[in-house]
Amino acid sequence: MPHILNAEQFDTEQLGQLFSQADYFRDNDLDITDRREVMQSHVGRIMLSEFYEPSTRTRFSFEIAATKLGIGVVSTENGSVTSSAVKGETIEDTMRVFNEYGVDAVVLRTKEDGYAVRAASVSKIAVINGGDGKGEHPTQAVLDMYTIQEQLNQLDGLNVVMGGDLAHGRTVRSLSKLLSLYPDNHISFLSTPELQIGEDIKLHLKKNGTSFEETSDMYGVLSQADVVYWTRLQLERHSGKSLTMGQEHFILDAKALDVMPKDAIIMHPLPRIAEIPVSTDQDPRAKYFRQAGNGLYVRMAMLDRIMKKLD
Amino acid sequence: MPHILNAEQFDTEQLGQLFSQADYFRDNDLDITDRREVMQSHVGRIMLSEFYEPSTRTRFSFEIAATKLGIGVVSTENGSVTSSAVKGETIEDTMRVFNEYGVDAVVLRTKEDGYAVRAASVSKIAVINGGDGKGEHPTQAVLDMYTIQEQLNQLDGLNVVMGGDLAHGRTVRSLSKLLSLYPDNHISFLSTPELQIGEDIKLHLKKNGTSFEETSDMYGVLSQADVVYWTRLQLERHSGKSLTMGQEHFILDAKALDVMPKDAIIMHPLPRIAEIPVSTDQDPRAKYFRQAGNGLYVRMAMLDRIMKKLD
Amino acid sequence: MPHILNAEQFDTEQLGQLFSQADYFRDNDLDITDRREVMQSHVGRIMLSEFYEPSTRTRFSFEIAATKLGIGVVSTENGSVTSSAVKGETIEDTMRVFNEYGVDAVVLRTKEDGYAVRAASVSKIAVINGGDGKGEHPTQAVLDMYTIQEQLNQLDGLNVVMGGDLAHGRTVRSLSKLLSLYPDNHISFLSTPELQIGEDIKLHLKKNGTSFEETSDMYGVLSQADVVYWTRLQLERHSGKSLTMGQEHFILDAKALDVMPKDAIIMHPLPRIAEIPVSTDQDPRAKYFRQAGNGLYVRMAMLDRIMKKLD
Repeated sequence: MPHILNAEQFDTEQLGQLFSQADYFRDNDLDITDRREVMQSHVGRIMLSEFYEPSTRTRFSFEIAATKLGIGVVSTENGSVTSSAVKGETIEDTMRVFNEYGVDAVVLRTKEDGYAVRAASVSKIAVINGGDGKGEHPTQAVLDMYTIQEQLNQLDGLNVVMGGDLAHGRTVRSLSKLLSLYPDNHISFLSTPELQIGEDIKLHLKKNGTSFEETSDMYGVLSQADVVYWTRLQLERHSGKSLTMGQEHFILDAKALDVMPKDAIIMHPLPRIAEIPVSTDQDPRAKYFRQAGNGLYVRMAMLDRIMKKLD
Repeated sequence: MPHILNAEQFDTEQLGQLFSQADYFRDNDLDITDRREVMQSHVGRIMLSEFYEPSTRTRFSFEIAATKLGIGVVSTENGSVTSSAVKGETIEDTMRVFNEYGVDAVVLRTKEDGYAVRAASVSKIAVINGGDGKGEHPTQAVLDMYTIQEQLNQLDGLNVVMGGDLAHGRTVRSLSKLLSLYPDNHISFLSTPELQIGEDIKLHLKKNGTSFEETSDMYGVLSQADVVYWTRLQLERHSGKSLTMGQEHFILDAKALDVMPKDAIIMHPLPRIAEIPVSTDQDPRAKYFRQAGNGLYVRMAMLDRIMKKLD
Repeated sequence: MPHILNAEQFDTEQLGQLFSQADYFRDNDLDITDRREVMQSHVGRIMLSEFYEPSTRTRFSFEIAATKLGIGVVSTENGSVTSSAVKGETIEDTMRVFNEYGVDAVVLRTKEDGYAVRAASVSKIAVINGGDGKGEHPTQAVLDMYTIQEQLNQLDGLNVVMGGDLAHGRTVRSLSKLLSLYPDNHISFLSTPELQIGEDIKLHLKKNGTSFEETSDMYGVLSQADVVYWTRLQLERHSGKSLTMGQEHFILDAKALDVMPKDAIIMHPLPRIAEIPVSTDQDPRAKYFRQAGNGLYVRMAMLDRIMKKLD
């Protein structure tokens, strides 16, 4: 199966291979001669980019990744307005047509959960889930793992704090699943009761023997953290609902930085709003922009793997 | 004249040449080495894609076609919002500027009839009509003819049923004109009286000696068809008007398939809504996705022809 | 500093170099063999195009320019809807992320004044201001100067009439600054009192010893002009305000053409609405479409300069 649909499909061996390849692409992106060589990798291949929901990072990083691999890109940034979806076409039909176009991969961002799986169910060409509603965002989860590996040189035995709106953010869901592939990790889900992590994720962790806790004791868990994974309020997803999580309670400011261990790292899927003040960017533990950049190299590694299978 | 503005501009010889070239591009799209060679065809050329109305198929297939020919692409997917048209610029002025940019072709999709002709009237570079309102959609008509040729190996002496909203769909209009270039075709326009084909098309067919009928006897004409060309209700074009064509009467379901000859083919410009159930896709006569894919190769052939004239 | 943020950053030497390079690119755009050679210039480089406001000319000409230089392009045409800005991300954070993506330049069009400067303040990669609100539009100013040089073979000792909505148009502001770099130019700001040029520009000209006048005597100044730089009402910027400048008073029609010197040139940043009738296009002094085309070659020269510094 060439598709990238959810975080669960990866095992530790596949992740290891992706990470090596991502390292390689990062190393060869500095010098223009190396870049030009990498750009010969997949000339003749084409990736479609079909985004039905706003995105800067995911779309740009996939399209830059493709371009750096020599893959041609054809793109829709605003598919909910500009595609045949406005005429009532199903995602399956859209994908059936793309399958006739001699393209080699489709990156899909949709508003609704499960659309990537539906698309893949009728597709011989690779479907890459670029985020479907509050369902999955597997490439984000992989780049998050890559960043932890890169920064801490280990993926097991870690104390990981996930803070913020855990009920609506898809990144924490996928990341939790990937962390459960490695032994001895402990996850502290830090939120208000209303915005806690979903039952399905807790069940998944239990099955895999990954220990976790639900808590609202911010300073307590921060003081023990190896990884602090912070998220914003998904305001666009719960308009109308009242938010009992006051932003003042979940802000990584100087006081919070003070209690964090010296060699911990701070991650965030971005965009950040008020939950991480700009002043925190100067802290050497702040790795969220590096993390965003890793997205490029991890996505290059994924596209490279998909295209190599076609050669 | 390098422009592609309407179906009438093509004669049978030109169509034959385009079809051979489309065959060639289809054959050479399977192997990556062949693809890479084709991709050298027109390096240095640039196609602009200016879409003022939603489109998945037309824009994507033109941009993929260009990419596969080595033509650079610069694109607008949502021109009615993002271009200078919002500031009141005429299509003629937009085209005058594009003529100064050293590009080699402009694909144009507009809401209003006749815009492609207006654009071409001030342009030395090729204007390709990618659909203007309910006017013309010539590249669709050519790919429709190509699909008939490919599937039935003939373009004359055919019984063609065109069913659905014939008053608002532009594809049936252009296709009728092309069918009238070949002898002994018979067209059955199948619709309700309110949504029947326009007088101008009937006049055109009469002039060219192509026989046709207007009917609402679905099972009668289906039982005699070589080609069943089905279309959806153009809901976005007659908001407010009441639709007397109940969708239950014009659905290609098992009962309709039953009366169709065994070697007939089913075509549809897509997107389809309820007028062709998904279950029909399994029928070997269903060719509408193949037809969509043919759009890619026919558009490659068209771009190839335009660019060759510049060399 | 690799950024292009405002017109003031250029001195006459830099302008001269850009103009030579633009000449070179114009000369080598006619023949496909020359084009292909130019297209090898910067293979491996990538330009991001981030447009938060509608644009045909600026975005297309930058993306065509990049394509013609072999620079890969990744683009957003409707960033105010489709990017992370809708989730509340600051321009600084957006730029911090782009800096992690191994790209080489970002072209930015924003609604708000000063956004390009803010973006550049956190960026190591080149930020090119493609227009920020009513602030600056430096690449337009440079192409305007290039057009004057190309057409009149001089940039000093000129009588320049700038007519129209001077209060809201950014092009006249930047152009005034560049004209003040050269000796003996005289600018006639032709408008109604409500829509006259800003105080900051007048101060700038005074400081630089460039003479100017504010006037509403259209025929008087036209009769003395070497350059007539005409602009449209920026209707999208003063909705609600009443416009006392009747369009009938500021139209370059036959009567206006009559009083203009024979070797004057007419420029306009486009789009034009009613302020220049289409009939005027036939006048040999009308250079506004040529001017638009020059935008391509000037932007190629700018991108070339930025990319060369990286090699």
